[in-house]
Amino acid sequence: MSKPLGFEKPLGMRDLLPDVLEKQRWLEQQVKACMKQWGYREIATPTLEYYDTVGGASATLDNKLFKLLDSEGKTVVLRPDMTAPIARVASSLLKEEPLPLRLMYTANVFRAQKNEAGRNAEFTQLGIEYLGSSSVDADAEAIALAVSVLKAAGVGVFKIAVGHIGFLEGLLEEIVEKKEDREKLKEFLYYRDYVGFRHYVKEMALPEAGAARLYELLKLRGGKDLLDRAEAITINGQARKAVTNLRQLWEALEAYQVEQYILLDLNLLSNLDYYTGILFEGYAANQGFSICTGGRYDGLMAQFGRPCPATGFAVQMDSLIEAADYQPARPKKFLILYHAAQRTEALEKARVLRTGENAVVIAQRKEEWTQASTAPYTEVIDLTGEEAT
Amino acid sequence: MSKPLGFEKPLGMRDLLPDVLEKQRWLEQQVKACMKQWGYREIATPTLEYYDTVGGASATLDNKLFKLLDSEGKTVVLRPDMTAPIARVASSLLKEEPLPLRLMYTANVFRAQKNEAGRNAEFTQLGIEYLGSSSVDADAEAIALAVSVLKAAGVGVFKIAVGHIGFLEGLLEEIVEKKEDREKLKEFLYYRDYVGFRHYVKEMALPEAGAARLYELLKLRGGKDLLDRAEAITINGQARKAVTNLRQLWEALEAYQVEQYILLDLNLLSNLDYYTGILFEGYAANQGFSICTGGRYDGLMAQFGRPCPATGFAVQMDSLIEAADYQPARPKKFLILYHAAQRTEALEKARVLRTGENAVVIAQRKEEWTQASTAPYTEVIDLTGEEAT
Repeated sequence: MSKPLGFEKPLGMRDLLPDVLEKQRWLEQQVKACMKQWGYREIATPTLEYYDTVGGASATLDNKLFKLLDSEGKTVVLRPDMTAPIARVASSLLKEEPLPLRLMYTANVFRAQKNEAGRNAEFTQLGIEYLGSSSVDADAEAIALAVSVLKAAGVGVFKIAVGHIGFLEGLLEEIVEKKEDREKLKEFLYYRDYVGFRHYVKEMALPEAGAARLYELLKLRGGKDLLDRAEAITINGQARKAVTNLRQLWEALEAYQVEQYILLDLNLLSNLDYYTGILFEGYAANQGFSICTGGRYDGLMAQFGRPCPATGFAVQMDSLIEAADYQPARPKKFLILYHAAQRTEALEKARVLRTGENAVVIAQRKEEWTQASTAPYTEVIDLTGEEAT
Repeated sequence: MSKPLGFEKPLGMRDLLPDVLEKQRWLEQQVKACMKQWGYREIATPTLEYYDTVGGASATLDNKLFKLLDSEGKTVVLRPDMTAPIARVASSLLKEEPLPLRLMYTANVFRAQKNEAGRNAEFTQLGIEYLGSSSVDADAEAIALAVSVLKAAGVGVFKIAVGHIGFLEGLLEEIVEKKEDREKLKEFLYYRDYVGFRHYVKEMALPEAGAARLYELLKLRGGKDLLDRAEAITINGQARKAVTNLRQLWEALEAYQVEQYILLDLNLLSNLDYYTGILFEGYAANQGFSICTGGRYDGLMAQFGRPCPATGFAVQMDSLIEAADYQPARPKKFLILYHAAQRTEALEKARVLRTGENAVVIAQRKEEWTQASTAPYTEVIDLTGEEAT
């Protein structure tokens, strides 16, 4: 080939250079160590899956799936998340293992990107799935572990927003008759378009009390005391049961001593169709994007033939890199310069220095250098803290 | 969806369960720590690349590339190796960084599989690329680092077979006139079909001395003294230069004190078109497959517009898992059983035990249990060494 090759990458794909990757690896280590301490065991699944198998069960919207055609014309996807693949494994290879199962992963996941100025198409997620428990203690464990993970990663100030899909849906069903209207309202909440939400409520021309309860919904963000206000706008049934569920959750989170990190947010909707109960998102102070997202998804496992309740969460590594203000301690770095005749001595020096996290590179002196009688034959130069090798 | 989803995965794709993944992660850590100590800096590149960009430059045979069609009908590949992507990065994002560049990676790479009983389509490689040095010391560094890596990973008994493509090609050119015959002979060596090689030599009806030299080639496996025999069957030019190169390499490997791990193998051919000088493969005792493969590839960087010499190697994680006989120390594992009323106490016990590599899972007692007056309210059970959670 005489013409140089191009440098093009598929849309949204990127290279990670040493400095950012060093931070990412350090963070992965902290997060994984924390998840392991809580008894989660790591599993891995393929990068590529059949669209028919996990694509449809994924929490990711269909138009965001990274679809490709294989050599037989079958539609495959680069995995959009790890929850559906783990549900597949828990229902097949691990089907003899008793519940509950605590599993964790670190994996690259993919989203199709449509335009040049787009977001990343491939990014790293670390997460856990806790399969087989419907108890509020399982929800609390997931949230408390998320707190532990963010602390271990050195995120200074953060909050976990906690909502409940049962409250939202129950309340909407109490007030709004038509399913399309309820879906539309949920969509506004999902996109955090509260202006649109208010406008739509106004347009629906509901009885005044009903509209007032929906406006009140938007204000349900705060601490434990908010639960009384939440209960006050529900009549009975699903929404009220959700409030009870959240009261029990709050108690459990107090037992974990993490309540200071929690912000109840009853109009939180992380995903349109996926979660079935308590759901949550972690935010660092002054950042607009979530670092982690999770919640209860009691419907998924049945799709793989092993029906059971489940909860879990995933940490977005890119967000964590932005939010974590801790700088990992830079390891020592040395350059050993040597004259050809002193190679054995230089290699021995390198061998001795190469312990722990020390990094040592060696380089033979250029001839001009070695002929200057003042230059030492081998020299160890400390490059710690300097850029590049 | 009422019908359960299937469990099918694309051909050759697999899930990794906790036990094997635990060993893999431990090995990754050992290998990466070692590469870092030698001053290599980690980079990452996308899973998906355009076929036109890195597919053609890859060391992998075209029919082994995992090709797919993207939504615009362009051919993409799941990266077959990391060498071409790193050459791309070194020639673009890192083009201002002075040579030599020492880079490392850990990445999943892909090969298309054609049949059910096939091999893995996705597997983990860890490797280094040392760009910008043509010196034999760079080859020696790569080989000595490979030795260090295999030792760090706990591979007990192993050898690195070292060959030289310049010797092979030079010798064949001295003896065999037609290019097709030379290519055919190289193919026999590549597939280690020595019977086929001998048969083909016979069929060519060469002058007796030439044929004798080719048979002698097959015997060129051993220590340093083999180099005299190798020199004796060459006349001049490329093959003889290669022997000189190997003599210098041996000296450098002695300076690294790793010569006891080296087996010179002058009919070694790891790849049909890729390597341009010294090449090598690491083998554990009693195993038929190589754990690592590497060598000099001075032609690749020019394809990306930054011509420079280069060497490197990659470790196959699956082979390493088979070869490494070291078992990582099992961390402690505890189960804390508690009665609902004692949750706070149980969680505090869990918090205290969750240090270092300890893993702690908690579980609330079933009611029948808690009513038995003899059962303690919270109990810490040591599960260290037991299967599963």
